[in-house]
Amino acid sequence: MSGGQPDLLRSRAALSRLFEPSDNVGLALVAAAGPVDALRVATGSLRAGNALIREVTEELAGAGISGRGSSLAEALARWAPRVPDLAPDRDLATISRAGGELLTPEDPRWPEALRDLGLGMPLCLWARGDLNQGMPALGRTAAVVGSRDSTGYGASVAGDLAAGLVVQGWSVVSGGAYGIDAQAHRAALAVGGGAGAAPTIAVMACGADRYYPAGNEDLLREVVRRGILMSEVPPGSSPTRWRFLQRNRIIAALSAVTVVVEARWRSGALNTAHHAAALGREVGAVPGSVYSANSAGCHRLLRDGSAVCVTDAAEIIELAGPIGASADSAEAAHQEPAAVHDGLTIEDLLLLDALPLRSGSPVEKLASVAGLSVPAVRAGLARLELENLAVRDGLQLWKRSRR
Amino acid sequence: MSGGQPDLLRSRAALSRLFEPSDNVGLALVAAAGPVDALRVATGSLRAGNALIREVTEELAGAGISGRGSSLAEALARWAPRVPDLAPDRDLATISRAGGELLTPEDPRWPEALRDLGLGMPLCLWARGDLNQGMPALGRTAAVVGSRDSTGYGASVAGDLAAGLVVQGWSVVSGGAYGIDAQAHRAALAVGGGAGAAPTIAVMACGADRYYPAGNEDLLREVVRRGILMSEVPPGSSPTRWRFLQRNRIIAALSAVTVVVEARWRSGALNTAHHAAALGREVGAVPGSVYSANSAGCHRLLRDGSAVCVTDAAEIIELAGPIGASADSAEAAHQEPAAVHDGLTIEDLLLLDALPLRSGSPVEKLASVAGLSVPAVRAGLARLELENLAVRDGLQLWKRSRR
Repeated sequence: MSGGQPDLLRSRAALSRLFEPSDNVGLALVAAAGPVDALRVATGSLRAGNALIREVTEELAGAGISGRGSSLAEALARWAPRVPDLAPDRDLATISRAGGELLTPEDPRWPEALRDLGLGMPLCLWARGDLNQGMPALGRTAAVVGSRDSTGYGASVAGDLAAGLVVQGWSVVSGGAYGIDAQAHRAALAVGGGAGAAPTIAVMACGADRYYPAGNEDLLREVVRRGILMSEVPPGSSPTRWRFLQRNRIIAALSAVTVVVEARWRSGALNTAHHAAALGREVGAVPGSVYSANSAGCHRLLRDGSAVCVTDAAEIIELAGPIGASADSAEAAHQEPAAVHDGLTIEDLLLLDALPLRSGSPVEKLASVAGLSVPAVRAGLARLELENLAVRDGLQLWKRSRR
Repeated sequence: MSGGQPDLLRSRAALSRLFEPSDNVGLALVAAAGPVDALRVATGSLRAGNALIREVTEELAGAGISGRGSSLAEALARWAPRVPDLAPDRDLATISRAGGELLTPEDPRWPEALRDLGLGMPLCLWARGDLNQGMPALGRTAAVVGSRDSTGYGASVAGDLAAGLVVQGWSVVSGGAYGIDAQAHRAALAVGGGAGAAPTIAVMACGADRYYPAGNEDLLREVVRRGILMSEVPPGSSPTRWRFLQRNRIIAALSAVTVVVEARWRSGALNTAHHAAALGREVGAVPGSVYSANSAGCHRLLRDGSAVCVTDAAEIIELAGPIGASADSAEAAHQEPAAVHDGLTIEDLLLLDALPLRSGSPVEKLASVAGLSVPAVRAGLARLELENLAVRDGLQLWKRSRR
């Protein structure tokens, strides 16, 4: 092989087929030796020297990883069965035919947010869509995730949140699954697209050339056309449970906030939320009926303090950014007609409640009823009259104004 | 007047008519001089000496109170108009005719929890119901409060929570209002009563001889009959906004946990929640639809961290007591059918997902698909076969078991 970028690309392509996602030994090997030599070691064409083995061990120790399967020897044994299947040029051709590319950490378009995964950062991303203009700015992405068997309520909220985020220039990340994920992608596409960041990003657990689940094919094609679809596993890969679980860490890492819209007590969406929390990302959960099993997981997150309650897109954006800016907007969103007593002092409130509705009372009576001194009542009546809350009813009598 | 209990009772009865709830100067005067002399000073029959004035000032400073209306001179001026109306014997006779009593802090039945209000502790409680057996044990009371214009959802949750609490031997405190309050009282009465603590306690903003609102008269009569109805304001008093707000501090102080079931963005129930938080009591909020204005106040409490998400009575009880005890019960309440892969190691999960459903694969193929070494596949197949998750399909071929 000759040096330079093409080699890096081909090596990472091959390694992404050799290693399962989050294969820590593999990732430590890449960190220690670089992708090109890591591939040569992993495939057995270069023997790992003691220095390299020590470096890999240190990388793993630095990431706090030990235990079964975490020695280089064990890892070589599990990589060996896949070596005959490696065909990086074929995989690169496949993604290219699908209109996509292989993004690597060496690429300036690589999402910087993924670096927070440390050793767990994906080796590469097989990606389709507008990777040049579409990659969202750091901190303007939110994951909207949840149950596949969503309720009408959950689907509706997912749609409203996603649409609200895209209207504010945010990108909506999700997993392309049925239910909440699909609704989030769909609503994001309905509102946005065209210039600027992709309205939505689907992070898949299968190869980026596949449409899984089949029922979402049309939707996922539209995500490719106007958003971004990506996966860390190479073209043709099946979605396995392990890949689903690991895929969730990418969704969490890409997103400034991860919002769980609906989730059962046990749900993959909670796994995404925990990844987000572990990364120090903000986590939001949408409240729902206490009678809905599909909200039980959200309530669990709220209850144990793992998530903040979010009810609209503005609250999601507020979670990501400096608080305070949106406190006013929250007040504005909940405008209620001002009550007549808004802004009154305690004394004037006591006096207002002491004023009769029908026939007026004298000042002395008002003082007794309100529990105020006579001078306080006189001063208060003057203020309430100005506010059109009290009116005279005869010479020295006062009553409530009928406004 | 002669000394002793009757004087204390009469004096507190009179003072409760002279002072509005939480009249800090009045309460400081009682703290400094005792109820009997406080009444004499407050009614002008005893002149406050410099020593007493200093003591009152110190009481107020100790409670962090200053500003307008907080000098004894100002207070005397606001009390004066009510002096002619004082008739403690008449008030005591009225509560007695209604089958009630005046409870004072000197009474062994006085709810100890109220002492946490410090200077703001009520002077006395005009109370009806079974005050001898019915007063609940400290820490086994929960306030269930919320909007008057509750939705069907809110009413249903309030009822379920109250019933669940009473079944566990708890007392449900509320404010006797329409909506959530009424539903909480009603459900508590439907489940409990008879021996032991009162199933429910209504803390009123009007006199304990009155039924307010009128539409709740039957319910409130039943609360008197099988629970406890109480108020810090004397018989015949009207419910004013000030008294409603101050009444809320009593609800909060009586309750180990205050739960807001439904509340608009601005709601009196939030005031009760803030009182509870200020007292260091636990606050719970019930989640609901993000589209319901009646849940916006609950979500606000959840969002700003003022309340913990609660969805059933067990979670309320858990809030009050040592956590952990109920973590198991929460798991139990959300039992879901175990998935086939529950408890599998990552390696076995990878292998399980690699096993074909129809025609079997050889070990080498499985190793490549799963990303495991050949020995790891052999060991894993043995385990999965034992678990009835893998079966042989011919001599050296394996597939998924159709269980």
